[in-house]
Amino acid sequence: MAGKFVCLADFEKFACESLDKNALNYYNSGANNEQTLRDNVDAFRRYRLRPRFLRDVSRRDTTTTVLGELLDFPVAMAPTAMQRMAHPDGEVATARAAASMSTGMILSSWATSTIEEVAEASAGGLRWFQLYVYKDRQVTRNLVERAEKAGYKAIFLTVDTPILGKRLEDTRNKFKLPAHLRLANFSEGDVRSSGVQSDSDSGLAAYVASLIDPSLSWEHVDWLRSVTKLPIILKGVLTAEVAREAVEHGIDGILVSNHGARQLDGVPATIDALREVVSAVNGQVEVYLDGGVRTGTDVLKALALGARCVFVGRPVLWGLAYKGQEGVQEMLQMLKEEFSLAMALSGCGRVSDITPALVVHESYYQSSLRHGPTKQQSKL
Amino acid sequence: MAGKFVCLADFEKFACESLDKNALNYYNSGANNEQTLRDNVDAFRRYRLRPRFLRDVSRRDTTTTVLGELLDFPVAMAPTAMQRMAHPDGEVATARAAASMSTGMILSSWATSTIEEVAEASAGGLRWFQLYVYKDRQVTRNLVERAEKAGYKAIFLTVDTPILGKRLEDTRNKFKLPAHLRLANFSEGDVRSSGVQSDSDSGLAAYVASLIDPSLSWEHVDWLRSVTKLPIILKGVLTAEVAREAVEHGIDGILVSNHGARQLDGVPATIDALREVVSAVNGQVEVYLDGGVRTGTDVLKALALGARCVFVGRPVLWGLAYKGQEGVQEMLQMLKEEFSLAMALSGCGRVSDITPALVVHESYYQSSLRHGPTKQQSKL
Amino acid sequence: MAGKFVCLADFEKFACESLDKNALNYYNSGANNEQTLRDNVDAFRRYRLRPRFLRDVSRRDTTTTVLGELLDFPVAMAPTAMQRMAHPDGEVATARAAASMSTGMILSSWATSTIEEVAEASAGGLRWFQLYVYKDRQVTRNLVERAEKAGYKAIFLTVDTPILGKRLEDTRNKFKLPAHLRLANFSEGDVRSSGVQSDSDSGLAAYVASLIDPSLSWEHVDWLRSVTKLPIILKGVLTAEVAREAVEHGIDGILVSNHGARQLDGVPATIDALREVVSAVNGQVEVYLDGGVRTGTDVLKALALGARCVFVGRPVLWGLAYKGQEGVQEMLQMLKEEFSLAMALSGCGRVSDITPALVVHESYYQSSLRHGPTKQQSKL
Amino acid sequence: MAGKFVCLADFEKFACESLDKNALNYYNSGANNEQTLRDNVDAFRRYRLRPRFLRDVSRRDTTTTVLGELLDFPVAMAPTAMQRMAHPDGEVATARAAASMSTGMILSSWATSTIEEVAEASAGGLRWFQLYVYKDRQVTRNLVERAEKAGYKAIFLTVDTPILGKRLEDTRNKFKLPAHLRLANFSEGDVRSSGVQSDSDSGLAAYVASLIDPSLSWEHVDWLRSVTKLPIILKGVLTAEVAREAVEHGIDGILVSNHGARQLDGVPATIDALREVVSAVNGQVEVYLDGGVRTGTDVLKALALGARCVFVGRPVLWGLAYKGQEGVQEMLQMLKEEFSLAMALSGCGRVSDITPALVVHESYYQSSLRHGPTKQQSKL
Ligand SMILES: Cc1cc2nc3c(=O)[nH]c(=O)nc-3n(C[C@H](O)[C@H](O)[C@H](O)COP(=O)(O)O)c2cc1C
Ligand SMILES: Cc1cc2nc3c(=O)[nH]c(=O)nc-3n(C[C@H](O)[C@H](O)[C@H](O)COP(=O)(O)O)c2cc1C
Ligand SMILES: Cc1cc2nc3c(=O)[nH]c(=O)nc-3n(C[C@H](O)[C@H](O)[C@H](O)COP(=O)(O)O)c2cc1C
Ligand SMILES: Cc1cc2nc3c(=O)[nH]c(=O)nc-3n(C[C@H](O)[C@H](O)[C@H](O)COP(=O)(O)O)c2cc1C
Repeated sequence: MAGKFVCLADFEKFACESLDKNALNYYNSGANNEQTLRDNVDAFRRYRLRPRFLRDVSRRDTTTTVLGELLDFPVAMAPTAMQRMAHPDGEVATARAAASMSTGMILSSWATSTIEEVAEASAGGLRWFQLYVYKDRQVTRNLVERAEKAGYKAIFLTVDTPILGKRLEDTRNKFKLPAHLRLANFSEGDVRSSGVQSDSDSGLAAYVASLIDPSLSWEHVDWLRSVTKLPIILKGVLTAEVAREAVEHGIDGILVSNHGARQLDGVPATIDALREVVSAVNGQVEVYLDGGVRTGTDVLKALALGARCVFVGRPVLWGLAYKGQEGVQEMLQMLKEEFSLAMALSGCGRVSDITPALVVHESYYQSSLRHGPTKQQSKL
Repeated sequence: MAGKFVCLADFEKFACESLDKNALNYYNSGANNEQTLRDNVDAFRRYRLRPRFLRDVSRRDTTTTVLGELLDFPVAMAPTAMQRMAHPDGEVATARAAASMSTGMILSSWATSTIEEVAEASAGGLRWFQLYVYKDRQVTRNLVERAEKAGYKAIFLTVDTPILGKRLEDTRNKFKLPAHLRLANFSEGDVRSSGVQSDSDSGLAAYVASLIDPSLSWEHVDWLRSVTKLPIILKGVLTAEVAREAVEHGIDGILVSNHGARQLDGVPATIDALREVVSAVNGQVEVYLDGGVRTGTDVLKALALGARCVFVGRPVLWGLAYKGQEGVQEMLQMLKEEFSLAMALSGCGRVSDITPALVVHESYYQSSLRHGPTKQQSKL
Repeated sequence: MAGKFVCLADFEKFACESLDKNALNYYNSGANNEQTLRDNVDAFRRYRLRPRFLRDVSRRDTTTTVLGELLDFPVAMAPTAMQRMAHPDGEVATARAAASMSTGMILSSWATSTIEEVAEASAGGLRWFQLYVYKDRQVTRNLVERAEKAGYKAIFLTVDTPILGKRLEDTRNKFKLPAHLRLANFSEGDVRSSGVQSDSDSGLAAYVASLIDPSLSWEHVDWLRSVTKLPIILKGVLTAEVAREAVEHGIDGILVSNHGARQLDGVPATIDALREVVSAVNGQVEVYLDGGVRTGTDVLKALALGARCVFVGRPVLWGLAYKGQEGVQEMLQMLKEEFSLAMALSGCGRVSDITPALVVHESYYQSSLRHGPTKQQSKL
Repeated sequence: MAGKFVCLADFEKFACESLDKNALNYYNSGANNEQTLRDNVDAFRRYRLRPRFLRDVSRRDTTTTVLGELLDFPVAMAPTAMQRMAHPDGEVATARAAASMSTGMILSSWATSTIEEVAEASAGGLRWFQLYVYKDRQVTRNLVERAEKAGYKAIFLTVDTPILGKRLEDTRNKFKLPAHLRLANFSEGDVRSSGVQSDSDSGLAAYVASLIDPSLSWEHVDWLRSVTKLPIILKGVLTAEVAREAVEHGIDGILVSNHGARQLDGVPATIDALREVVSAVNGQVEVYLDGGVRTGTDVLKALALGARCVFVGRPVLWGLAYKGQEGVQEMLQMLKEEFSLAMALSGCGRVSDITPALVVHESYYQSSLRHGPTKQQSKL
């Protein structure tokens, strides 16, 4: 891998060649047959761009807002657990990269850095907190209160993980957090957080089974609503039904996500699911997307189909593995430039110019022809 | 293959590496070009899950019933002939595994163990008997009466085998039952059962041509109805037409099956055919499915599309080849856990929560978009 | 290739390994990118069989008729030029195989055996003559009159070859008929028939350009009608439009064919084109099909979609290359047995039981589901 | 690569083996993942030809006109920059080939030969000029005036390049024009044209960013209209919306193009986009197509779907690399012969016989069947 990286795949290639198997498999795997993992990426290719030309695109304004907070471009960072396996600075590097690029990051409940150290390292940066609900509500509440106090701007409540998905390689590896690292946000007294290991299974699967609340339901959402003033965003919604329920429960936003295809294999690619969610909420709350975003045109397509902002998960880890904070910045910079170029080449000067007319499903090009010729041969 | 198996494909890999060619080809082959063989598995991938979240899934009740009999989870074992080629204990091991896992097995007419020894070995276990109709009705009747007497709970009448399908490798191998084994349910006086061999063809094909009744018709079904009190289930139905005829003839259940793609190549995958059968019987009888079930989400999809229970064929043989009874149990345990996990991750606490809304065909995600944008661009 | 052949692909493999490049490329090639060549075979796989069970199939009557002539099974032999490149006995062997299997053969205008010797060698056998229209009408008329006199039962007029298609390998090879062979039906005085060679191109392409009439039109068809009493069948029809014109011109039958994908690359697979032709002629004339038929289920599908009989081209050449007359018989026997088996396994006792309900396009299984779930989620 | 070339792929193979990496990558690359690059070619394969037979095709008139100018056949040459990297004679050779084959060429703004030398070398030949709009309007105007004076017949205004697309290999190679070549149409005083190089990026990307006007809009089009009497054709249109705007602005023609998939990856293949453009302009202006044309049937399909003429880009470069002017002529001759043959084999004696009824999308063959059998099984 000589020379400067020219696309996100170059970052991935670097990570694949430099990370150890325990970490690499944990980062890159999807659930079971990894059908949805591949589909998250492939599905973007099934949408076609319909560019408008001859519009002044000499200046492109790539800024957007998420719940009123300004982002320099509509790509922020999804929460991924245990970032210090990729680079010693872990989540701290990620937060600094976010701040320096004027975008945001979501810190995972399972970070290997504390809520507070991340906040301090990136003062003024935009941060949100991703929440897993522990059986012990006090543990849960403690996380939320610390995040609120440390200036995190919203809670992303992950709804797709009452139990951990089955990732074959992690089971084979009996995945565990290396000895020198720990889930940093839990004191010994709270949970046996350092114990991410198991003899017969993925250590994380065992951890989740013992501590995370599988009874997670709308009742918990209402409870969460009552213990924090922060906006609450549901992370993991894939259907119109859940989206409508979310709106009814006063949720502030929806992140269309399938957890990077790590939970239930066989769910739709997120870009496929996006449309029905956008249509169901009908503008009442903001909708975001993560899963499979790898190029500037992916971002453009997601926005055209109704997302306000997208998040990237694995690319952050690849950037960390490459060069820590600097690697993450390079990765973000690349997406920003590609997105800006994609705006230019499709005739969009501002994010608000990115409308549904810009994108069609590939099947659009069959349907228009299927009827045409059939009519002409109507004597058939 | 070091370490514990983590998916059914691991069992298959083991079987492929340990069984001899005569047995392996017989077990794993499909008819002709094996198009339907591949499709049975691939077709499941064409259905997408639409998970509901935020429902209490801390306890999942995976139980179902088949004709009133309780199963611990909705996966039972399809009849496969000559199981002793895979392991010395053959059908006896399978029956014990079924009993120990609180599910059921269907014993094949062509078992290498007797109806009675299987019953004794798994007293209290749930067993059904699969029937091939012999030209000699007395032979047929004798099988049914022995099964009824030995406590088998139903007759699965296989309707897709008036003649044996053409399996290329078996023809090449001149497939035969090894000398030390025999079709155990036929006395010398009954049929020349040990003679499963031929000089120019698959031995089984020659056996079927000489003894099995190719005139099998509804008249035989009515006759069967008259000689046994056991419920009768048709195994091999793939269309609405046959399903409706079955209901009219007072059949008790329908097993949507294409005989593991071993009979007529080019028929639909069973998961594709399921829907029209379910719709045709309209709740009047129970519908089951076998063919290509390899993961917990396959089970979930089949149930969502209307199957009450699914059966697995080849995975049982792989389990036997691996470790006899214990191997079969491990295989079943894996499917049970995967199914339970799939329920949890799609918001289902009970089997009755698994409704059609949980599944869509992949084409669903094109159609919704095809019309949307077309309308928006209606000036076209 | 040890042991008995078990499928037509075994014959092809043998031919590929034994024929020289000049002959093999001529036999197996299609036009240009060979897209249609692959599609002819692949398209059959896109149709699914919907078998009816529980009908007495102990005896299957596979007979059909073509213009009133009885065939033992609905597979006859398409005309292929220059069969003596495959075996010294060439067309004579083919004719004998047809007679011994009680089916028919179409003799090519470009046979390497004379019309008369083929007739004598297979007295009592069913033969038809394939006609290319020469610029010199007397040459053309002479062929027709000789065929009529020698007892051929119909003229198959090839309409898709006003000019020869572009077959890349033949152009590269500068394809030519080996020195010891000649187009046997032309006396030196008639046409320079032995000169099938060229310095810069496929020899056959040059031959066609110099002698075959590129102005072939309905006027020629009417002329042909006036010079022979034999039934006339158009070979090469792919659309409803041409089929309707054929009926208006009093044609006796239509062979849906794309010349084995050797003329215009990019035309539909014949099984795809069949339906619109059948629908257009609406029972007024018989419709046949050739192109890509390789298995018994291919035959079954073609008949279900409206063909009265199918023809095979390349498989005849493979059979010849294998063992001359005997090789062709083995090939036909295999198709006959596979077809009979396919009838049995789909519940058809007679050819007239093979109805359109037996076959659906693979897209049938998407459409039924696309609407179902959409309705259930109609609040979307 | 022994012997005469038989298809355009042979030219490509030669070019791949003989050009250096800097030039080859520049010529053959597409933007980003090259999805649209592949699709430009693949999409042609998704359309099926429906040939009419029995029409006199002994003489085929392949001529067409472009804005009233006669072409011997409907294939002309798209503008590609820097042709002298492929052969010392570059654009001069191309122009001579065009003249000798009685077709036309579009000269790129970024030619390595001057507008005037190309005109002189091919006096009497048909030439058009492709225009990039420079920030410095005087530079732009100068190009147009010189083209008009030198007898170029139209201006093809490229609208899809306000900024250069991202081509990964060019970025990796830091693509630059070799030292002995220069963009020949710019005097030192005009633009720093020889400086096509950059330290950190594709040199051409840097060049475009510094000199080409990214604010290109309809205002520029109207300005161009005011400074030249030549017809103006928009090059790069992919949607009905832009096509309609073009008609409203009095544009004389539309070239449906995606710049050889070099600008925005993810746009439709041009043959897919053609139809909506043709339908939108409704005969008011001529429509042409470039992108992925590689065979005679590609030309036929484009014309059947409404293009008046097609253009080839990369094949010209391959022809140049092979043998300069002679190589380009051979390439054009091959397309001409293939097109003429395709006309013959589909029953078209003149270009005006090539109507929409000649082509259907592959999905046509599913749809006709989907409904048929469904009706027959309407009791479902
Ligand atoms: C290694 C890894 C760890 C993750 N950890 C979490 C987590 O702790 N909490 C969470 O809500 N999502 C987690 N996710 C899911 C991501 O937030 C996000 O949904 C997903 O990675 C987006 O897909 P992408 O990786 O294709 O960009 C994780 C994903 C990965 C790959
Ligand atoms: C080796 C083998 C033997 C079989 N023997 C029988 C049998 O004796 N009777 C029967 O009704 N089905 C038989 N089947 C079909 C199975 O009951 C079942 O339909 C099929 O295996 C299910 O598909 P699966 O193998 O993909 O799970 C057999 C299948 C296999 C693979
Ligand atoms: C080597 C070869 C020679 C052929 N010669 C003729 C011919 O002389 N006349 C004709 O009408 N069709 C000819 N055909 C076309 C066949 O009649 C038939 O349409 C085609 O082979 C059927 O497709 P299949 O080969 O896939 O079975 C020829 C085909 C092949 C492969
Ligand atoms: C190497 C190369 C250089 C090109 N340069 C120009 C150019 O200077 N101006 C322009 O309008 N289009 C340019 N194009 C685009 C072509 O005009 C044309 O749209 C495209 O090559 C057609 O696709 P094809 O190469 O598949 O035939 C270029 C294309 C290539 C491959």
